[in-house]
Parts: sequence; C-alpha cells; structure tokens
Amino acid sequence: MADTVGKTITCKAAVAWEAGKELSIEDIEVAPPQAHEVRIQIYYTGVCHTDAYTLSGKDPEGAFPIVLGHEGAGIVESVGEGVTNVKVGDHVVALYTPECKECKFCKSGKTNLCGKIRATQGKGVMPDGTSRFKCKGKDLLHFMGTSTFSQYTVVADISVVAIQQDAPMDRTCLLGCGITTGYGAARITAAAEEGSNIAVFGAGCVGLSVVQGAVAQKAAKIIVVDVNPSKEEWAKKFGATDFVNPTQLKDQTVVEKLIEMTDGGCDYTFDCTGNVGVMRAALEACHKGWGQSIVIGVAAAGQEIATRPFQLVTGRVWKGCAFGGVKGRSQLPGLVSDYLDGKLKVDEFITHRQDLAQINTAFEQMKAGDCIRCVVDMK
Amino acid sequence: MADTVGKTITCKAAVAWEAGKELSIEDIEVAPPQAHEVRIQIYYTGVCHTDAYTLSGKDPEGAFPIVLGHEGAGIVESVGEGVTNVKVGDHVVALYTPECKECKFCKSGKTNLCGKIRATQGKGVMPDGTSRFKCKGKDLLHFMGTSTFSQYTVVADISVVAIQQDAPMDRTCLLGCGITTGYGAARITAAAEEGSNIAVFGAGCVGLSVVQGAVAQKAAKIIVVDVNPSKEEWAKKFGATDFVNPTQLKDQTVVEKLIEMTDGGCDYTFDCTGNVGVMRAALEACHKGWGQSIVIGVAAAGQEIATRPFQLVTGRVWKGCAFGGVKGRSQLPGLVSDYLDGKLKVDEFITHRQDLAQINTAFEQMKAGDCIRCVVDMK
Repeated sequence: MADTVGKTITCKAAVAWEAGKELSIEDIEVAPPQAHEVRIQIYYTGVCHTDAYTLSGKDPEGAFPIVLGHEGAGIVESVGEGVTNVKVGDHVVALYTPECKECKFCKSGKTNLCGKIRATQGKGVMPDGTSRFKCKGKDLLHFMGTSTFSQYTVVADISVVAIQQDAPMDRTCLLGCGITTGYGAARITAAAEEGSNIAVFGAGCVGLSVVQGAVAQKAAKIIVVDVNPSKEEWAKKFGATDFVNPTQLKDQTVVEKLIEMTDGGCDYTFDCTGNVGVMRAALEACHKGWGQSIVIGVAAAGQEIATRPFQLVTGRVWKGCAFGGVKGRSQLPGLVSDYLDGKLKVDEFITHRQDLAQINTAFEQMKAGDCIRCVVDMK
Repeated sequence: MADTVGKTITCKAAVAWEAGKELSIEDIEVAPPQAHEVRIQIYYTGVCHTDAYTLSGKDPEGAFPIVLGHEGAGIVESVGEGVTNVKVGDHVVALYTPECKECKFCKSGKTNLCGKIRATQGKGVMPDGTSRFKCKGKDLLHFMGTSTFSQYTVVADISVVAIQQDAPMDRTCLLGCGITTGYGAARITAAAEEGSNIAVFGAGCVGLSVVQGAVAQKAAKIIVVDVNPSKEEWAKKFGATDFVNPTQLKDQTVVEKLIEMTDGGCDYTFDCTGNVGVMRAALEACHKGWGQSIVIGVAAAGQEIATRPFQLVTGRVWKGCAFGGVKGRSQLPGLVSDYLDGKLKVDEFITHRQDLAQINTAFEQMKAGDCIRCVVDMK
C-alpha cells in the first residue's frame, strides 16, 4: 500500500481560475477520500468540448476556480470507509454520470441518470458539501464529479468503475465520455433494429461513435451529415454507408435529401452538434409514423429547439440522452470488452497527444477541424 | 337489397360552400361506390373541433366546397367491386385514419398511420382522384375520407369498420374520433404502466377519454388541468384523482405544481388543447429520465412548439399521435366491446343533440364551454 494513504497528496493539476482564461498548471493539495469516496491517480484524460464550454464562461452554471476534466482513466490510490465496489490498485474510469443502484432513477430501469449526488455534483463539491482540492490556500471546485485534469482526484464511489487491467488507459479514458455517449445512444437509447436507416449529424468523436453503434446494430443505411468535407473519409472508416455535406446540396435541404435517400425518412437520427437548427432538421428528417430523433449535443445556454407539433402528431419522436443512456458501473466494462475484442474502435479517435504541461495546446487543437480527440498524459 | 344499389342517391347534406360561412343544408347527389368503395347511410355524426377548424378557413389545406364531418356511424347501403371487409347491412363506423394492412406503415407494427390513400384523402377526393358528391352541378370535396355530414357518404373500404349491431349508433359515432383518440393515446401510444402518474391538459372529449384510458391502465395519480372550473366535476366523474386550475395557482406555475404533486414530475402527460404553450408545459411537467409527453391537440397553422433541448437530453420524450394510435379496423371493435361491457363511458359525453337541419346550432354549442359532444341525427 502506498505511503500516501490517509495523507494529503500534493500534485500537478490544470486549474481554471476564471472564465475565459487559459488553464494554469499548479501544485494542488488533494485531501484523502472520505467515507464512500475514492482517490484516483489519473493516468490519462481526454479533452472534451464540455470542458471548453465551461472554461469559456458560456455555461451559466459554471463556477470558478475549478479543476475541469471528465474523461479520465487511472488507478485507485486509496479508498474511504465503506467503499466496496473498487479497491486500491484497480484500473478505473471516472464516471460523470454515477450509478448508485439505489435511487428512484437507478431503480426505474428507464434511465441512466442517477439522482443520488446530483445536487452536490452540480455545485462542484463532494456529497458532503466540501471540496478535496486546495491551491494557494483556496478551495477549488470539482467538475462533473470527476475533475480529471489533476494527477490525483477524489470521486464518490458511485462515480467510478473498475475495468480490465489489460486495457490501455490512454484509450479507455475516452470511454469516460464521447465514445460511450455515441455508441450508447445508438445501442441503448435508440436500440436501433437491424435494417434501420440512420442519419448522424456531426462527425466528431460522438457522431463517429454513433456510427459504430449503428454498425453493431446492423443498420442498413448509415448516413453521416457534416459540413466539413474531410469528415467523409472519417465517416466511411467507421462504417458509414453515405456522407452528405449540406453546403454542397443544390436546390434541396438536408431534410429533403435524407427523406429522398431513405424513401420517406430515417428510422433514427442523432444530433451530435449541439446546434438547435440541426436538431430540428434531425427531427424532421425522421420517417413519419415512427422515426425517432435523439438529441445528444449540448446546446448553448438559453437556446431552444422548435418544430411544428404536426411532426409529433404524425408519429415522430423527439428524445435525448446523456452518456448514451449507459449505466456506467453496470455497462462500461462491456464497452471495454468490445474494445479489446476489436468490436469498438477507440485508438482511431486519438489524433493528438499532449502532456499535462501542454494542456492548453490540447484545447486549441480540439477546436481545429482535424482533431477528433487529444489525449493528455497526466503522469 | 335496397333498390338504390348501383344508382345515384339524392339526399340531404350539410355543405360547406366557402370558408367562414355557415353550413348550408342541400340536396346532393351521391354516386354509387366504385371498386373498393363503400356507400354508407349515416345515422349519426358527432361535430368536432377539426370540422370547425376547417370551416373557419384557418386550415391552410382546407378547400371548398366540401362535405365536412368525420365522426360518423351508419349502415352499409351498398359496396363496390372487390369489397370483402364489410357487407350491405353492416353497422359501421367511418375511419378517417384508414387501415389497409398492406402498406409500409400498416406492416411496420409501429404506427396506425396508413399511407395507402393519404395523398387523395388529403386532396378531398376518392382514391381514383374523383368525387362521389355533386350539388347544383358542382363536385363537392370529400373530407378526411369520411364526410359524415351527409345522409349518404362514400368511403374507401379501408376507411370503414363493421361493429356489433347491438351497439347504439348515436353513441358509437363518437368512437370515430374524440373518445378513441384520447382512450387510445393512454392505452396504446403511452401504454402507461400501472401506478403511473399522469397529467391531462384540457378536459374536453379527448382529455376525458385520456382519463378513462389512464383508469384502465391503473394509473396512480390522474391529474386533469383545465382553466374552466366547471371541468373539475367532469374530470372526477371520469376517474381523475386531482384537478388543477392554472389560473388559480399562487406563486407557482402549473409545471411547478405538477412536479410538486408527483414528487419530481409526471410519467406521462397529454396535451388535449392544441395550444403550443400548453404543449411545452406538458413536456416540462414530465419526470426527468423517463417522462413522456404526448401531443394530441391540433395546433393552429404555422404555430410551433419549443423547449430547451436539455429537457430531452435529461430523458424526457416528446411524441404525439393521431386517432390515439388506434388501428381502426383491427382495434375499434374492441373499444365498442369495452363500451358495451361498461368499461368505457360514451353516453356521458353527449351533452347536446340536434337534427341535421340544426347542424349550425351544433357548431355554436360546441364552442360554448358546457358542451362536450353534440350528436347530430342524420336520419
């Protein structure tokens, strides 16, 4: 057992001191885990648009100073009293969508949105209402219950899942958000039937993972829609059958084009852009009578989706999901197996790598069009 | 066999000559049924808001002159070549939502929206593109494939279902629209689980029938929302457990009130108003993670529904249905049995009665608050 157990650890972390500023690499103090908490040494973390969104200050619920990051894998350094689901030395993925298996939500069998620590997670503190991070004498807030931009983090025990030790952590970290979100949306939220026609709007990490989920569900047509022509190659690589660039359509809207390509509309569509206009198009490209559109992207604060109610009265369904509808503790190990068995592509998403010291470069790269995922080495 | 078979019948009908004008009682000529068509002597018809909407001229697809009416029961007078599903003398209900059992929609198992005659029905003509109605030398359009405001009408064979002869037609006519729409929405579209908490916005014929469907599904709370205080008694009579009048709430929106009453939100909500603001409230009153809101009401032309996409990402589902998701030929006879067995209230809806000559009075009465359904005697 490491001699850090029970003691405060001083380590490097990328601190977001205020909105709109770059992250600052600092020495921070990470307190030991309390009851039902787990301290994790983060080995690798992805950088996701949600981190950038909160850092930008556009998220009305964003508060500072905070340790961002929510797509991380690492090894359990120590556990607090009463922790039974992971043990020291376990390889783990942090879960921003926890799973307590006890609350009304977890017991419903209808959702992965565990309610147990929602209130405190939203406020940026641990379930007891306090922080485990300190820097320059100030408490730092936790982010999405995970805060993976620190070499050590503390999470609730329901916010972590142990995975196979032979799965490389620089890949499994990405299962903490984007890949799982897309893959789960197609396989769990939509549970698309064999032979379905599917359209995916936005070919980033989430969209391409929807494509993978659609392939696993044996979809017929898998149409990727993106305004970036370089995404066609990506889409095909992940299994898309067709690619539509809305900016290159003549005398036809993307909705008309998709309805034409699918003889009446898609069985399932997925918005992976966060653009409310795209969300509307995704709904309206659905087949009358049964087409379902699943909102995955996160829209900017205050933005609204709209359509004519006739779209719903004639049988289209508008729904959404977070983390792909995946229950992290119950279902994430299955995704790791799919990856190790060659059924789920993960390596291909990693277009860029950085060390913690260059995490701001990772943010810049993410915003450029040629980046799918940048993995940050936290060691 | 009546001596009218194969001949044109001259009978009384209420003709809508132009938008915004009263109906005019005329002698019209009704041609014999062609192949796969059925001529019905209409005994009784309901008057529904959809008839008034089209008559008002607000329906952008409304065309004139036309024979309105879509909630009718009668007896088959004659059938065209190839008709096998009904025979002369059958007691029938006209179906504005047909069921061919052969098209992509009917075969999907996912919707009741048959596509076979959609195009011609929308244009106000029979499947061969012509009309069976003439008045003063002019063709009259058909309405919703039914045109029940005529003593005789012609419909496609897929637009009619035979029902038990002992079911009184002045009641079964109402199963042609409102009652079936509401009852089906709760039982088929929502298929609400036992113990569900349900809110129904609007306590007209459709809303009160949703309440009946919710009772049949063994819902826990059935909350009716209406701004008309006299509807509380109606709601309770049909099985509602609670009544909320939004205009009488203090410092609380109806959404907040419903979330409070149901410890987090409703499992299913139903809009039976056609008001897009109400549709939004109905969605937002749903429980996070799984609550489904079903749009039943028909909004005015051009109006749109809106919400923040976060509502969907956090698990709420926005859907809708027409004719309650009920497949008319397969499932309407079951509703007639439910009525005859005392499981489905129908008689209670009939607050007013008129003869065909007074059908304009029926329209006026419908618009007054104390009318649920006015049945028109067509004989």
